[in-house]
Amino acid sequence: MEFINITPEVEACLQESGIKDGLLLVNAMHITASVFINDDESGLHHDFAKWLEKLAPHDPVSSYKHNVGEDNADGHMKRQVMGREVVVAITDGKLDFGPWEQIFYGEFDGRRRKRVLVKIIGV
Amino acid sequence: MEFINITPEVEACLQESGIKDGLLLVNAMHITASVFINDDESGLHHDFAKWLEKLAPHDPVSSYKHNVGEDNADGHMKRQVMGREVVVAITDGKLDFGPWEQIFYGEFDGRRRKRVLVKIIGV
Amino acid sequence: MEFINITPEVEACLQESGIKDGLLLVNAMHITASVFINDDESGLHHDFAKWLEKLAPHDPVSSYKHNVGEDNADGHMKRQVMGREVVVAITDGKLDFGPWEQIFYGEFDGRRRKRVLVKIIGV
Repeated sequence: MEFINITPEVEACLQESGIKDGLLLVNAMHITASVFINDDESGLHHDFAKWLEKLAPHDPVSSYKHNVGEDNADGHMKRQVMGREVVVAITDGKLDFGPWEQIFYGEFDGRRRKRVLVKIIGV
Repeated sequence: MEFINITPEVEACLQESGIKDGLLLVNAMHITASVFINDDESGLHHDFAKWLEKLAPHDPVSSYKHNVGEDNADGHMKRQVMGREVVVAITDGKLDFGPWEQIFYGEFDGRRRKRVLVKIIGV
Repeated sequence: MEFINITPEVEACLQESGIKDGLLLVNAMHITASVFINDDESGLHHDFAKWLEKLAPHDPVSSYKHNVGEDNADGHMKRQVMGREVVVAITDGKLDFGPWEQIFYGEFDGRRRKRVLVKIIGV
């Protein structure tokens, strides 16, 4: 499990688009992963990991019917709690954030290279 | 509780719109239901149902203050875990999906006919 | 913890914008708060509060690593369950709602004045 702050990469996409006013969608392209907005504080990330493990435990792996040749059923559930995507307002060419809002990619399976989609619409 | 793959119906709406680039919103129009994106795998759906029942049990019905003449308080909670809506990018006239992403309607109450809203904006 | 129906304020923003067809984003600007859509029924709100306290208990405060000089780690988790934002379709100049859908601001920390962002795009 890992939470990666992708705000700089998303801001770079917004810069590149030249869009000043609109909406920006960021979503995980994997169904055992999440894109969410919260605080960039390592203690909190530790708490999130522990909490998600309590809500949707990895073990026993065999308690999930999905785990036939796989062992990531819990990752599908953790992703539902944290959410697939965020939609952020763009105002004056910037992500219109409240204090402390940062965008994270949350990984709950960990295998293979992962991708995030950023879609921007506006003027 | 039931999870229905509505991806073909959503794709048909997109075709009909003729929109090639933009955003597509799909949401449940009922507050004890969900639209979410995950895997179309029956074992996983079984696991989701069992897990949601653990997080927000239907019984005892009387443990919920909402259940006065109703018995669906747990459905309102299951819906919050799974989410009301998804926003999907449209690129080259297609839903811009990662591998295995499919759109589901999740029903947590089960009475009456249900509706989903699809809204598409773009060019 | 408190749930405030902000639908009238959001509808006023929509009126002011003059937009007839499009998408409306409403999000909390605080990371221990939520904007969500559900039923305006006081028994249900009581049930939500009790349920969220069970899923992500406030106490013991010291069980969370985030709680160094703060005591709101549980609020960050409650917010993830309920969600940061909603995206609502606008059709014929109105919020395109199903029966009983109402927009709420959910507060899980309670200090300081709070803000909500409403962004509307369309024609």
